[in-house]
Amino acid sequence: MLITKLGEFGLIERFNKQIKLDKTVIKGPGDDCAVIKFSKDRYMLLSCDMIVEGVDFLRGDNPYLIGHKALAVSISDIAACGGLPQYAVVSMAMPKKTSLLRADRVTKGIFDLARKYKVNIVGGDLSCADKLIIDISITGFVEKKSLVLRSGAKKGDIIFVSGGLGGSCRGKHLSFTPRLKEARYLVNKYKINAMIDISDGLCQDLGHILQSSRAGAILYEKLVPFSKSAKGLQDALYSGEDFELLFTAGHAQAKDIISNTTMPFMPIGEIVDRKYGLRIIDDKGGETKPDKQGFQHF
Amino acid sequence: MLITKLGEFGLIERFNKQIKLDKTVIKGPGDDCAVIKFSKDRYMLLSCDMIVEGVDFLRGDNPYLIGHKALAVSISDIAACGGLPQYAVVSMAMPKKTSLLRADRVTKGIFDLARKYKVNIVGGDLSCADKLIIDISITGFVEKKSLVLRSGAKKGDIIFVSGGLGGSCRGKHLSFTPRLKEARYLVNKYKINAMIDISDGLCQDLGHILQSSRAGAILYEKLVPFSKSAKGLQDALYSGEDFELLFTAGHAQAKDIISNTTMPFMPIGEIVDRKYGLRIIDDKGGETKPDKQGFQHF
Repeated sequence: MLITKLGEFGLIERFNKQIKLDKTVIKGPGDDCAVIKFSKDRYMLLSCDMIVEGVDFLRGDNPYLIGHKALAVSISDIAACGGLPQYAVVSMAMPKKTSLLRADRVTKGIFDLARKYKVNIVGGDLSCADKLIIDISITGFVEKKSLVLRSGAKKGDIIFVSGGLGGSCRGKHLSFTPRLKEARYLVNKYKINAMIDISDGLCQDLGHILQSSRAGAILYEKLVPFSKSAKGLQDALYSGEDFELLFTAGHAQAKDIISNTTMPFMPIGEIVDRKYGLRIIDDKGGETKPDKQGFQHF
Repeated sequence: MLITKLGEFGLIERFNKQIKLDKTVIKGPGDDCAVIKFSKDRYMLLSCDMIVEGVDFLRGDNPYLIGHKALAVSISDIAACGGLPQYAVVSMAMPKKTSLLRADRVTKGIFDLARKYKVNIVGGDLSCADKLIIDISITGFVEKKSLVLRSGAKKGDIIFVSGGLGGSCRGKHLSFTPRLKEARYLVNKYKINAMIDISDGLCQDLGHILQSSRAGAILYEKLVPFSKSAKGLQDALYSGEDFELLFTAGHAQAKDIISNTTMPFMPIGEIVDRKYGLRIIDDKGGETKPDKQGFQHF
């Protein structure tokens, strides 16, 4: 039996069942970051993301942007939990025939973004492989009151996204801006019940929130914002790597978020009882269920 | 120009020059772990290690031991700084054709060792690649008074190793026991001036201590302990992945360490002035300089 039979999420679930955690771990595997006891007021956040040539980027992609993406996905995870990143370690495997110019541009992509987001690159490991692979682990911190997990969505919550979706494969997935500023604005100003960054597609990542929160959801087709390069609704619903924030908040909070024009948060649906699952309402009021899954590595 | 022209350590040095760190970082890249301010009494340690099929293990190796090694190398890094590991995140890329049995055995190798050393696996990332690649980042803590870096070796220090060297490629590199117990014993009982785990070969890793400490060293051939599978002195001096501790301590401490029979620490030489570099004294009193480097990835 091959791992493809279980799929990525089945495999993750299988592995996670074997994990034993001590009392200092507030949240282990299964969210954007692990959450660990730190001080009276703050939690520590930990996350890792591996990007692989031919999977997450192509050999011919701009090497500077490959480096940028490698760190941006990690910063995005910290943002999705409401925190601020502070330290990262970088493991990188490169083909032996890599030019120094290419290696320099990849690392400049990492270092420039690190400087911009005040992330200390405190260590790393170099190895060789047939293809370029970068794995970055990031550590950050979040005020206890600002921590947001996938599991907090409540019936009646309004669902929001932080920007247009779809078509990320046509460039944005490499050059995207991690929504750290937006996430920090949200957790400082509002009570956000659940949050995730959209890496596997809107429907799939909303599915993660629903599963963790034991809830259902209704999405309104006409409310889902398209990015400039989206080819249509299917693209916005199912294609991965938008790296926009997807979050939910109660009604009173939601009204304030909608009326606030400083940040472009867009309501796209609401949280309902678990028994409804995830349904999409089209322009004519018709209901459909998502007809396919988003991205899985296998 | 290819990266091979600079070599692994040249490349690391080139990258590290571009790194900016804030005041909370006590020690950035260039030691077994990064050291970060944490509390009044303790520092936080951070390290990452990537192992790659065809480089750090072979496709046909025991998958349980591949998983074991992936975490053991990280625990060894925390040990080398005198600390205790507590949290780890695991990134793993596997070929799509991996059998579930193989994936299970690799992860069991990781999880069993994690349990044994009380390491919480708090998160991870799965991806696919042509070859199996595992990158583990580990976080631990060390009492401020127990922190040991590569940079503390002093003229007159005695140089010790924690076990026999050489021949690790014939099996030990996969199944080795990280010297955590030994390292904690040392830092709790003695004043250790410098420490590293031997991953690239005795001469090369001693070279790292000498470079960081701006010191020279004399090794006595007849004192270098061989492991059972070592093929001779060259093997013990230059082959990598013994994962024994290499450390230095002042004369008075060294006397105590030598007379202590609880743990098998063996003196192999002494730290001298930088101008002498690294010299090896053979059985007849003849002096040689190390004639080749240890392992580099490129």
